[in-house]
Amino acid sequence: MQRRRAFVHRISTGAPDDVAGLEQAFAEGRIDAGSVVAILGKTEGNGLVNDWTRALAARALRDAIARHAGPKVADEACLVMSGGTEGGLAPHVTVFEVRPDDGPERAGALAIGRARTADLPPEHLGRSSQVGAVAVAVRAAMRDAGILEPDDVHFVQVKCPLLTGERIAEARGRGADCVTSDALKSMGLSRAAASLGVAFALGEVEAVPDTAVGHDLAAFSTRASASAGVELAGHEVVVMGRGRGWSGPLRIDHATMADALDVEPVRAALARLGLAAVGQLAPGQRSRLKAMLAKAEAPSCGRLRGFRHTMLVDSDLSATRHARAFAAGALGSIVGHAEIYVSGGAEHQGPDGGGPVAIIAEEEGEHV
Amino acid sequence: MQRRRAFVHRISTGAPDDVAGLEQAFAEGRIDAGSVVAILGKTEGNGLVNDWTRALAARALRDAIARHAGPKVADEACLVMSGGTEGGLAPHVTVFEVRPDDGPERAGALAIGRARTADLPPEHLGRSSQVGAVAVAVRAAMRDAGILEPDDVHFVQVKCPLLTGERIAEARGRGADCVTSDALKSMGLSRAAASLGVAFALGEVEAVPDTAVGHDLAAFSTRASASAGVELAGHEVVVMGRGRGWSGPLRIDHATMADALDVEPVRAALARLGLAAVGQLAPGQRSRLKAMLAKAEAPSCGRLRGFRHTMLVDSDLSATRHARAFAAGALGSIVGHAEIYVSGGAEHQGPDGGGPVAIIAEEEGEHV
Amino acid sequence: MQRRRAFVHRISTGAPDDVAGLEQAFAEGRIDAGSVVAILGKTEGNGLVNDWTRALAARALRDAIARHAGPKVADEACLVMSGGTEGGLAPHVTVFEVRPDDGPERAGALAIGRARTADLPPEHLGRSSQVGAVAVAVRAAMRDAGILEPDDVHFVQVKCPLLTGERIAEARGRGADCVTSDALKSMGLSRAAASLGVAFALGEVEAVPDTAVGHDLAAFSTRASASAGVELAGHEVVVMGRGRGWSGPLRIDHATMADALDVEPVRAALARLGLAAVGQLAPGQRSRLKAMLAKAEAPSCGRLRGFRHTMLVDSDLSATRHARAFAAGALGSIVGHAEIYVSGGAEHQGPDGGGPVAIIAEEEGEHV
Amino acid sequence: MQRRRAFVHRISTGAPDDVAGLEQAFAEGRIDAGSVVAILGKTEGNGLVNDWTRALAARALRDAIARHAGPKVADEACLVMSGGTEGGLAPHVTVFEVRPDDGPERAGALAIGRARTADLPPEHLGRSSQVGAVAVAVRAAMRDAGILEPDDVHFVQVKCPLLTGERIAEARGRGADCVTSDALKSMGLSRAAASLGVAFALGEVEAVPDTAVGHDLAAFSTRASASAGVELAGHEVVVMGRGRGWSGPLRIDHATMADALDVEPVRAALARLGLAAVGQLAPGQRSRLKAMLAKAEAPSCGRLRGFRHTMLVDSDLSATRHARAFAAGALGSIVGHAEIYVSGGAEHQGPDGGGPVAIIAEEEGEHV
Repeated sequence: MQRRRAFVHRISTGAPDDVAGLEQAFAEGRIDAGSVVAILGKTEGNGLVNDWTRALAARALRDAIARHAGPKVADEACLVMSGGTEGGLAPHVTVFEVRPDDGPERAGALAIGRARTADLPPEHLGRSSQVGAVAVAVRAAMRDAGILEPDDVHFVQVKCPLLTGERIAEARGRGADCVTSDALKSMGLSRAAASLGVAFALGEVEAVPDTAVGHDLAAFSTRASASAGVELAGHEVVVMGRGRGWSGPLRIDHATMADALDVEPVRAALARLGLAAVGQLAPGQRSRLKAMLAKAEAPSCGRLRGFRHTMLVDSDLSATRHARAFAAGALGSIVGHAEIYVSGGAEHQGPDGGGPVAIIAEEEGEHV
Repeated sequence: MQRRRAFVHRISTGAPDDVAGLEQAFAEGRIDAGSVVAILGKTEGNGLVNDWTRALAARALRDAIARHAGPKVADEACLVMSGGTEGGLAPHVTVFEVRPDDGPERAGALAIGRARTADLPPEHLGRSSQVGAVAVAVRAAMRDAGILEPDDVHFVQVKCPLLTGERIAEARGRGADCVTSDALKSMGLSRAAASLGVAFALGEVEAVPDTAVGHDLAAFSTRASASAGVELAGHEVVVMGRGRGWSGPLRIDHATMADALDVEPVRAALARLGLAAVGQLAPGQRSRLKAMLAKAEAPSCGRLRGFRHTMLVDSDLSATRHARAFAAGALGSIVGHAEIYVSGGAEHQGPDGGGPVAIIAEEEGEHV
Repeated sequence: MQRRRAFVHRISTGAPDDVAGLEQAFAEGRIDAGSVVAILGKTEGNGLVNDWTRALAARALRDAIARHAGPKVADEACLVMSGGTEGGLAPHVTVFEVRPDDGPERAGALAIGRARTADLPPEHLGRSSQVGAVAVAVRAAMRDAGILEPDDVHFVQVKCPLLTGERIAEARGRGADCVTSDALKSMGLSRAAASLGVAFALGEVEAVPDTAVGHDLAAFSTRASASAGVELAGHEVVVMGRGRGWSGPLRIDHATMADALDVEPVRAALARLGLAAVGQLAPGQRSRLKAMLAKAEAPSCGRLRGFRHTMLVDSDLSATRHARAFAAGALGSIVGHAEIYVSGGAEHQGPDGGGPVAIIAEEEGEHV
Repeated sequence: MQRRRAFVHRISTGAPDDVAGLEQAFAEGRIDAGSVVAILGKTEGNGLVNDWTRALAARALRDAIARHAGPKVADEACLVMSGGTEGGLAPHVTVFEVRPDDGPERAGALAIGRARTADLPPEHLGRSSQVGAVAVAVRAAMRDAGILEPDDVHFVQVKCPLLTGERIAEARGRGADCVTSDALKSMGLSRAAASLGVAFALGEVEAVPDTAVGHDLAAFSTRASASAGVELAGHEVVVMGRGRGWSGPLRIDHATMADALDVEPVRAALARLGLAAVGQLAPGQRSRLKAMLAKAEAPSCGRLRGFRHTMLVDSDLSATRHARAFAAGALGSIVGHAEIYVSGGAEHQGPDGGGPVAIIAEEEGEHV
């Protein structure tokens, strides 16, 4: 079987529609447009309902890929734009490529797989049927990546649909009731069900009844990252981990933060990837850190380490914006910069108030 | 000469006007209302022009002290309310007491001194005459604290005035021009001049021409913390450091952060105070940390560690709110909680994009 | 029986805690502190959960009344502070006095009555039992005002409680379940039930089942204005209308706006009070308009007059802030200024997307 | 000479990138893509520095026109996207077409002309040289429209450039100093100079010294509407009025509001266009109103009709957002809906706190 090799390119952006860095990488041959399988981006909107920077960035990225590799590759690339670069978070995109490779198989090399689900009937959203559909796709993406064991999965990105007035009406016309008629709530419930789907596929939870979705905070995945978008009716799943048949110097691991200040597990994960540090990573170590992908949220109990926080009662500023800025400070204080992917809306993605953190690093002594 | 002893009490608050914790400490004798010299509080407003949580908190605190110790003590206590508890920052007040003491003098014990300036003519605000007035008061407060050397000063809080329409008109009536007619700008310029006054008193800068105020970012104090308020026409200065004639187990030190991710100097200062830790302070260490007092701001160049940040171009959310949340995450990741004092508006308070951090801790083995 | 006379004083404020205008009116004898029965104020906060300008204003007003008339009058005065002065809305307070009077009874003269309910068991909040309790109090306040017929009621202000963690826990301890555990939601449900209580008392609705509260948008009062506050556990009700035994030149009427642009009913109500105008009130007419009290909200369907509005999907800016600014423009364009009381959160207060407007004017030729 | 005829199409949008209505108009032949000369749109962002809905809408519109009429027409169409649909403002685009026509010349028919300036040297921005360049272009656009007299001009839209770091550096390299180094300020100064250019061309001001730009609030145009954008280095000018050689039933007029409540001049202008109404336009009249184009802003003195407003001291919410919502309520109360173009940032566009309002209506009895 043909070896594969994953490439990860972090590119700073000057605006949501700035694709100059990507175009330059295409022009210089550093990125092969036809090999792009996914892009995760941080854009400088509010990350909430009316954050149009995501749509603008996705449009610009899709147009750029299509110009170089045609519309099919562009449409199949999983583009996940996460709004909100609070605090020092740096707007950027991380481009994931999968290329055929002649090099030797490397145990532990970064593996990437993809899968899609069929369009989800609107009445399934936020319910156990969505959980099941996502779980099946996660396992398919694992197979695509050559990952055999759930423990070898370190990050699962799911793009999931949401409910719109049209979709709800269509279901109602068939006599089917949706879980909510509120678009914003449906985003949270869709992320919740998708994340429980990941948890189920990875053996982190057992049965998931309808009532657990969005409610049972003790059920969560330590590796799920979910994002809801109006532009799709099914799911796109990207799995990253350690699989068979992969080459190259990139490695992945993950940590689970119990809350936004729980950085020691992240420090430990960095150390496992060869980036051990007392305190902050040294400048020389930073270049080997290719990507840090984290979820963050405000603790629902209104307290952090026993002290009151005000993120949930601040009517001027969404809790998700508070949480991203705060977690970015905590993670950045370890890494030494803030060009990291911190995303909000962490339903069933890590424990209540905490979140999963995936880290991709290059092995020491290796250079792409 | 009579020995003195400083006490520092950090009290969580449930609302800006919550003085229940303070009242309880009065009732139980843990705090002597007549000995209160200053209170630094974090309140849950936006920290900007229309943040009325500061006025509400100050009114509630003043009323509480006056009930127990009369209006004179209440009026003389320096009440500095800093708005903005972004991220996980916990609303709280830190009460500073100075009591006569019979214990032995302890070298290095926390010393607190106060001074006031005369009312500042409005046309002096933001100019070298304000710098000079504050410098004189800082030296007077040092003497009040028994601090002999500038290097023994670790924190200087200045409450400074701002310009109002009435004050500007009064000056104009005398043929005097003020530096600005914009109240918001005058707050920044007043903090700037006051901070340069601290820097001058501590020998951190030499001459300060009018043109340096608010402009020469290379001139700054590593120990100043300034806050402008409409309720006073002069300045209140509180100096903390190591002085002669003080008793008790409290110690103070400080660090200067070059930017909001520059936490290693803070880790070193904690270690100097006996709170050494690889990574985060252990729970047992946290109880000995009495107060952390920091300033934070967004780098004016638009970049942090070489990567673009969006704090200065976010029209929905003030840069000061971004910066507090982010710095709180970085500092909290070291301390292990976020009941810390992080204040914005750091003109000439630490380097551009960074800020001073003062730390008060109890010596090991000592308990009040 | 002793005649009574109502006085209405609109006083501009320079800040939430500005009581200088009130103090001056006390000093000049224009207002008798002991006769103050209610104050409705607009303060410059966001009008949402973390709007502390309301608490600050209430504290300052209460302190001022207590200084002049003692704590009992101050505590019994119904202080309703409504946050949010968006658009051109002018921060101000409207002081309502009731004094004994020797003048002749005037048919149609403004009558004001008050009543209170007992403390509401937390589990009754947002349910038909709250509706019933408020309805009883509205009828009691009508009697207090000498108003015999529901049609003679033109404005009912209800201050209602909300659920806190403590209250919910207390109920749970007795085995009683509350309608929600979310403080913000409980504010809306409390206003909803209180407003349906007004509607029931005035014969605008018949039975009100639990399920109608907050849901049946077709059930509403055309004269209710409800405001939830954490500082009380029961309800304060102030009724205004036309009653027996009142003297003086003040008159009241009301209009119902179907949406925020539906200003013609307001124009008609002004005309009924002797303030007829083609277009905007002439400057000479404005001085006779003593108070305009309105509720406003965004249409829940997402459309206004057939066109899409974005108030409900703007994650940066609450719909209530949008709605107040917009309605203030519409009402101000008729009145000729914007020192009017426009309050948000109009559950069952007027139709969906609209709201009640009460107007108090002085009869032509009369001057207090 | 060939007659021309202007067409104006107001199209509601469901999102910033929603061009379905435009595409349908193309498909049904109601709009000829090749004849589109300008589109003025309201998008649902914040209208401030980080409002990316404008870029998203412009990209979607440009792509749509280019698909149907090629890139040249798309690039030449003047696309002015104004962010901010506060209050009930409805997101929409207004498409302006100019087609050759065989019909008879109609005195007073809507005339539209365009012109461009050369790229502006950065050091000219915000200074009298920019004023002059725009004035020349306004006169050229008048000629293009066949408008002979300044009094026949009723609306001038100018798209003007702003300063970026690159542009400032380029000027500095040549030894030239720019008026400011702050991008946001340069937007206001560019709008200011452009608007004074309109005022100069229309004879509303005489000489314009550098010092007047952005400062002399008594100098303004009653017909200018200026918008700054980073995507151009020169100016695009669109003039509308009454010119020679035009056919069709559309008519234009304008009013000047002294403040946001000054709606009677608008009522009078509507009446001059055959839309006379006591109070609000009747539903039957509304269909003849094709477009209302207005500017709005907060009075800089902090007062509106003598009462304090808080728009300029609200640190949570920009004054421009307040002002648009408020003016939309006032204008919508006359028109009967809020699908109107209300734009903020009105430097020298109408008097301080007020703004120009242009109205395009169809003659009675005429139907396109």
